[in-house]
Amino acid sequence: MSDERLYAVVMAGGSGTRFWPASRRARPKQFLPIAGDRPMVAETCARLAGLVPLERVLVVTSGDLAGEVRAALPELPAANLLVEPVGRNTAPCVALAALEIARRDPEAVQLVLPADHVIEPAEAFRASLRAAAAEARRAGRLVTLGVRPTFPATGYGYIEVGDVLARHGAHEAHDVLRFVEKPDEARAREFLAAGTFLWNAGVFVYTTAAVLAALREHAPDILAPLEAAGRATGLEEVYPALRAAPFDVAVMEPSRARSVLPIDYAWNDVGAWTSLPEVLPLDADGNCVAGGGALVAEGARDNVVFAGPGELVALVDVEGLVVVRAGDAMLVCPKDRAQDVRRVVERLQREAPDKL
Amino acid sequence: MSDERLYAVVMAGGSGTRFWPASRRARPKQFLPIAGDRPMVAETCARLAGLVPLERVLVVTSGDLAGEVRAALPELPAANLLVEPVGRNTAPCVALAALEIARRDPEAVQLVLPADHVIEPAEAFRASLRAAAAEARRAGRLVTLGVRPTFPATGYGYIEVGDVLARHGAHEAHDVLRFVEKPDEARAREFLAAGTFLWNAGVFVYTTAAVLAALREHAPDILAPLEAAGRATGLEEVYPALRAAPFDVAVMEPSRARSVLPIDYAWNDVGAWTSLPEVLPLDADGNCVAGGGALVAEGARDNVVFAGPGELVALVDVEGLVVVRAGDAMLVCPKDRAQDVRRVVERLQREAPDKL
Repeated sequence: MSDERLYAVVMAGGSGTRFWPASRRARPKQFLPIAGDRPMVAETCARLAGLVPLERVLVVTSGDLAGEVRAALPELPAANLLVEPVGRNTAPCVALAALEIARRDPEAVQLVLPADHVIEPAEAFRASLRAAAAEARRAGRLVTLGVRPTFPATGYGYIEVGDVLARHGAHEAHDVLRFVEKPDEARAREFLAAGTFLWNAGVFVYTTAAVLAALREHAPDILAPLEAAGRATGLEEVYPALRAAPFDVAVMEPSRARSVLPIDYAWNDVGAWTSLPEVLPLDADGNCVAGGGALVAEGARDNVVFAGPGELVALVDVEGLVVVRAGDAMLVCPKDRAQDVRRVVERLQREAPDKL
Repeated sequence: MSDERLYAVVMAGGSGTRFWPASRRARPKQFLPIAGDRPMVAETCARLAGLVPLERVLVVTSGDLAGEVRAALPELPAANLLVEPVGRNTAPCVALAALEIARRDPEAVQLVLPADHVIEPAEAFRASLRAAAAEARRAGRLVTLGVRPTFPATGYGYIEVGDVLARHGAHEAHDVLRFVEKPDEARAREFLAAGTFLWNAGVFVYTTAAVLAALREHAPDILAPLEAAGRATGLEEVYPALRAAPFDVAVMEPSRARSVLPIDYAWNDVGAWTSLPEVLPLDADGNCVAGGGALVAEGARDNVVFAGPGELVALVDVEGLVVVRAGDAMLVCPKDRAQDVRRVVERLQREAPDKL
């Protein structure tokens, strides 16, 4: 299959508070240079270089984030920015993009990617996407990538793999036995020991026909209103009423025709500040810095820093802290209490909502 | 004696790195709102309200800080800003101001104050200055204020008091037996136990005649070139060659005619970030914030924060930190290691001098 039939869908509508104060309502994580010099959404598109040019990349986001997409991806054709009137999780997002691609090329294979994950090396990832596209076309299946676990993670969903269905170059396509929600520690250890469970990387690959058929079967309440509305007309009316459901749960889980390709290079969903040491270079004392700023560390160990270009953070004799400087706000917190940042965010929602 | 004969000299030429990154070369501590809403030099002048109006306040600083003085004290008459071509410690500064005041009012009593100390209540301080002025005029002595120690401080110089020489209202003027440099812990404990030692507050009060006589006797190498140079002409030539000596050491110590007035209200030289809890209100968890910024603390205790107006610092579950946000730089450091900040400053002198 020629690459010209590949379209990519980058899901860039997410929001969240785990990267406050660097991420705000108006600029969530995917628009920040969390794990590189460019915003994560730009890194995600750059990772496709040589496989899918921007002309065939659709970026889906919400209306209040459209400006951030344009700023991060100035080369993206205007028609390739799909704006959701409101966020409704990933199933409506996937359906919206699937219908748009169907209009452009009914024979296309669609690669669906989160905007805010780190996956590398990019060349290996592109090879996996090519293999997944081949599997999608071969079997008409919904294909996903599964990351071989390296530790008993409790923060990721898992995929249990079945028999090998086909080989595509160096990749094996397995049947999917089931999707499993985030497990507790004990089950995560069982999964790791069993060797037949993979992390769900949130990447989906399928032909246009396959995804529309699956949506029609498992999520007609989402697909039908979008088909009726067309791309621009009436989206405002139908979208708010759509079921807010993840594509995994609404479509992948109930489907029977699913393949998974195991991959074993670096993947990280960068779910929190504490993920940064996994995706950034560390200095000799285990400190890392994101965002383009400079770190001067004296006797400081294992800290995670975020600061903007031209900004300087000096850490003296501190250990295991998250230190974030962003706009008019900053945060200092121990790494192992980073989840408590939501307490600050909750207080700000009441006391100083302009800081969110 | 009428208050009209009182002149104040505010010494605002100091520099230092202990308040980096809030203080920079171009804006040392006395120009920051470290312990109030206004720059410390403005608070120092405000403390004189009702005793010495700005028309009789001289501010001495170095050429590169003159703009900061004007910004902090827009009402200060231009002729009252004395600019030292280079800093030469306090003896030349005192001599320069003494000569200028001698030209304006040879009968004046001069009150010499550091620009960057906290002393309160202001009313009590003004009463002490009035008493010191009375003592200066009565005896023709060099008068100083001595703070009754409340703990065995090793960071301050001490004054050993002798007999009572006179009473001025509620104040006693004592003879000064000797000045003592910063003691070690054991001697500081002895001083505290003895009850006859006071902290040297760095405040001097004397008649114009007395200080010029003392300078002529003990520091002719400083006074004579300044007298020869006149106020503006030739200062550039003579100043760099002057001996850089503290007034205490060069003049007060060798003098015989010295009085000290004990005071027992709050005085603090705010020598480091760790002094801030002594001069600022604390929240219920012992945190304090200076600089006009906002602090949101969740489970955070005993931290010292500096941030500018409109800025927000969120601290979650951290304890005993100094957290400073200033311009394009920030610092995070345990309070008990605040002296190690100089290591950062030394590195920046080599690597990024624009951040100093």
